[in-house]
Amino acid sequence: MTMDSKTYKHLLRKLQIELVKYQKHLIKHGNKILILFEGRDSSGKDGTIKRITAHLSPRETRVVALGVPSDREKSEWYFQRYVSHLPAAGESVLFNRSWYNRAGVEIVMGFCTQDEYEEFFLEVNEFESMLSRSGVQVITIYLDISQDEQTKRMEARKTDPLKQWKVSPVDKLAIQHWEDYSRARNIMFERSHTEFAPWYVVHSNDKKTARLNVIRGILSHLSYAHKDADLVAPDPKVFFSYDPSYLKNGMLAP
Amino acid sequence: MTMDSKTYKHLLRKLQIELVKYQKHLIKHGNKILILFEGRDSSGKDGTIKRITAHLSPRETRVVALGVPSDREKSEWYFQRYVSHLPAAGESVLFNRSWYNRAGVEIVMGFCTQDEYEEFFLEVNEFESMLSRSGVQVITIYLDISQDEQTKRMEARKTDPLKQWKVSPVDKLAIQHWEDYSRARNIMFERSHTEFAPWYVVHSNDKKTARLNVIRGILSHLSYAHKDADLVAPDPKVFFSYDPSYLKNGMLAP
Amino acid sequence: MTMDSKTYKHLLRKLQIELVKYQKHLIKHGNKILILFEGRDSSGKDGTIKRITAHLSPRETRVVALGVPSDREKSEWYFQRYVSHLPAAGESVLFNRSWYNRAGVEIVMGFCTQDEYEEFFLEVNEFESMLSRSGVQVITIYLDISQDEQTKRMEARKTDPLKQWKVSPVDKLAIQHWEDYSRARNIMFERSHTEFAPWYVVHSNDKKTARLNVIRGILSHLSYAHKDADLVAPDPKVFFSYDPSYLKNGMLAP
Amino acid sequence: MTMDSKTYKHLLRKLQIELVKYQKHLIKHGNKILILFEGRDSSGKDGTIKRITAHLSPRETRVVALGVPSDREKSEWYFQRYVSHLPAAGESVLFNRSWYNRAGVEIVMGFCTQDEYEEFFLEVNEFESMLSRSGVQVITIYLDISQDEQTKRMEARKTDPLKQWKVSPVDKLAIQHWEDYSRARNIMFERSHTEFAPWYVVHSNDKKTARLNVIRGILSHLSYAHKDADLVAPDPKVFFSYDPSYLKNGMLAP
Repeated sequence: MTMDSKTYKHLLRKLQIELVKYQKHLIKHGNKILILFEGRDSSGKDGTIKRITAHLSPRETRVVALGVPSDREKSEWYFQRYVSHLPAAGESVLFNRSWYNRAGVEIVMGFCTQDEYEEFFLEVNEFESMLSRSGVQVITIYLDISQDEQTKRMEARKTDPLKQWKVSPVDKLAIQHWEDYSRARNIMFERSHTEFAPWYVVHSNDKKTARLNVIRGILSHLSYAHKDADLVAPDPKVFFSYDPSYLKNGMLAP
Repeated sequence: MTMDSKTYKHLLRKLQIELVKYQKHLIKHGNKILILFEGRDSSGKDGTIKRITAHLSPRETRVVALGVPSDREKSEWYFQRYVSHLPAAGESVLFNRSWYNRAGVEIVMGFCTQDEYEEFFLEVNEFESMLSRSGVQVITIYLDISQDEQTKRMEARKTDPLKQWKVSPVDKLAIQHWEDYSRARNIMFERSHTEFAPWYVVHSNDKKTARLNVIRGILSHLSYAHKDADLVAPDPKVFFSYDPSYLKNGMLAP
Repeated sequence: MTMDSKTYKHLLRKLQIELVKYQKHLIKHGNKILILFEGRDSSGKDGTIKRITAHLSPRETRVVALGVPSDREKSEWYFQRYVSHLPAAGESVLFNRSWYNRAGVEIVMGFCTQDEYEEFFLEVNEFESMLSRSGVQVITIYLDISQDEQTKRMEARKTDPLKQWKVSPVDKLAIQHWEDYSRARNIMFERSHTEFAPWYVVHSNDKKTARLNVIRGILSHLSYAHKDADLVAPDPKVFFSYDPSYLKNGMLAP
Repeated sequence: MTMDSKTYKHLLRKLQIELVKYQKHLIKHGNKILILFEGRDSSGKDGTIKRITAHLSPRETRVVALGVPSDREKSEWYFQRYVSHLPAAGESVLFNRSWYNRAGVEIVMGFCTQDEYEEFFLEVNEFESMLSRSGVQVITIYLDISQDEQTKRMEARKTDPLKQWKVSPVDKLAIQHWEDYSRARNIMFERSHTEFAPWYVVHSNDKKTARLNVIRGILSHLSYAHKDADLVAPDPKVFFSYDPSYLKNGMLAP
């Protein structure tokens, strides 16, 4: 049973106020935060990011959604094109898809070689650990939806005039490769879940509770003045840190 | 009398659908659009931009809100730091404040010399004309509010927990320099209103009608497939192209 | 009759000392200089630039030799990819080929449309005038060689193991299109020779006198402390400002 | 006893031919090379780099000499500003001073904290190993001079009109901190000499043999078609891979 719209808006507003408090603290102290959003096509990344940034200062907040790499970029060090978007002091940067493309769409669709895939896992943890030690707080979030929900959303897109740009021939491939994406997701969790950049999973079949709990989850891991600790405690059945046991017990979409 | 919330949302949605149609057309044809938003502090730039971009494709849309220039940037050609953010094929770029800073806050607050100010006006029209001829559709929009409305909004900010980051010591200066800003605005219109990048003024005391009419005004100047021409016709009392007679007849905030 | 090697080295050294004096002055005063080198393939651009920069401070000197534009760059404003390399305060920037590519190789080889070519000439003078007024001293230099000399150099390349990388299938085209390049050069001079960015032509069949006179020509147009005015006076038969009469009187390679 | 000028020029030319061969091979195969030059002030970095690049293709060769970081850059991940200059396919990049600044001038002169210094050593090996595995061949070269030679060169600078820009108040500090720099160098070798990015040390008191042997040393570690293996074998008393025993046995300047 889904949350009524009024309650949702009320809670969202209260959480956005917390985000504003957090950003004020971040700017004052010259901190840096980087939030990575991953998840299958239609899992709700765009909408979630919009709710987070809705009331943040545009001059200190950047949303980065990189397109397909150019030929030159393809020949560079894999992380290079992402590095130029990392946060400086006082900045909040949100990546709508990230370097984890390699561990998802690229390996599933054959856009990278098996060697590049292996190399990615050799690098990613150390790379994130460097960022972390250099003072960037890295938060990696995976929006998890069920196969039914994805199919439903992709159907709905076709007739939603606001989502026409999301409809693409790739949609069908996302559905066809459902199991490949599940497998890739599990391997990604197993190989890149670390202490300094743990994976947080969000049950995202219900958009409202997903969005509220993503904000809660983020805020619960940050420290800032005048934090409303009760408000920002996420529902552990919706937002939770990855654990290997979840690969077996139904906590993740099969 | 302000528009009721339900009507507003209904119209906003319909206009956002038009924006989606437009972007689809833009991407398909590899066109480029650049929309510049100017206006006093609290005139509604952030909120307007958010409504425009709410349902656009994040990978082809960029909102650019540059901070204070670094020392190096200050020594460069004035337009240089903006040039790197200009749109490539298929891209929609929105500037939240722009090179017109020089003709507004910089000259009013003494951040540039009189010579730099004069030089700006020698360059800006030719610069925009180059962009225009190179295929960038440039739309420059000025959100105009009354002195009362600005005072009210700045007061409201102080107690709105979502707008804490907007409150700054500069607010008071914006109010104190009201007339200087009016004068600077008028000079800016007189000297940079051109055929290829005309100034559009929006009466913005009422946020809802302002936002709806900005979207209408933008769309009415664009061509795209399946355009709903009636829907996108702006109210000429709210959104209108600058005309010298307006400096005298009360169409602009005094 | 060519200059003997000892005299050349002696003079080159004295002129390089003047360049060092000039750069010191430039850095001290936060000035900016941009020198554009154009000329047919094998006209001596690389070698000339190397002699100029040989003893300058590497941290304040940049040589820019852009490659073929990417697809994204091709869709941008033509000058955009050059703008990010313009000098900041204290910097000397040398372009090995420049935006004048459009008026040379691009139009001759059909890499741009006639419309783009015309648009280039509509923009280039105003663009350079902006740079000039913003404090960038722009010096545009054309190294002119005869057809015989080009043929000789291209032959020599083939067997010179140090120039293997210069040998390319395009060489033959440069020779075949000799007259087209002459015509394009003349049009470029006619349409982009201006007071603030005049074209300087250098007779470059003799490398030594060409290099010495390019340095003299540059320095003679700059002001700096302790300038040795006699030393830096170029030979007006080797380095001279373009004049329309030269299109007819044999001052330029036919 | 120093090499006579004629022999030097003859050998230099032969080695530059090998470099041209190498670059041709590099471009053809889309390889990437990054050469880092470190060494005390006046150790000969500028001159060595100029001999290496003298006959390479300017469009595929970049020399990077970064200035003092801006405030924004200081707040970023330490390696960030270097990353944007890394080579793409076919490119040869030479860093005139590099990220090793942190392990040299920065720690000696107190421009970084002890924590930042320690963090640097935690990151640098892993960072270089990533580059190496991603296909960038990394070669790190340290030009070692004696205290007498440094003093002599700094004296000579003062009266050499071509080196006026090199004379700075920091020169005196370099001499005063001779021992601190030696200690920093030794620690740098001990902590960042790795299999994939070993330190090569060059005895540089004699400029000619230093330059020749740097080129030999680089080429001897590269594979390319038509390599003249005898020619490129460096003198092991001039150019050698770092070994811990050298800290004690006089192979390094005390």
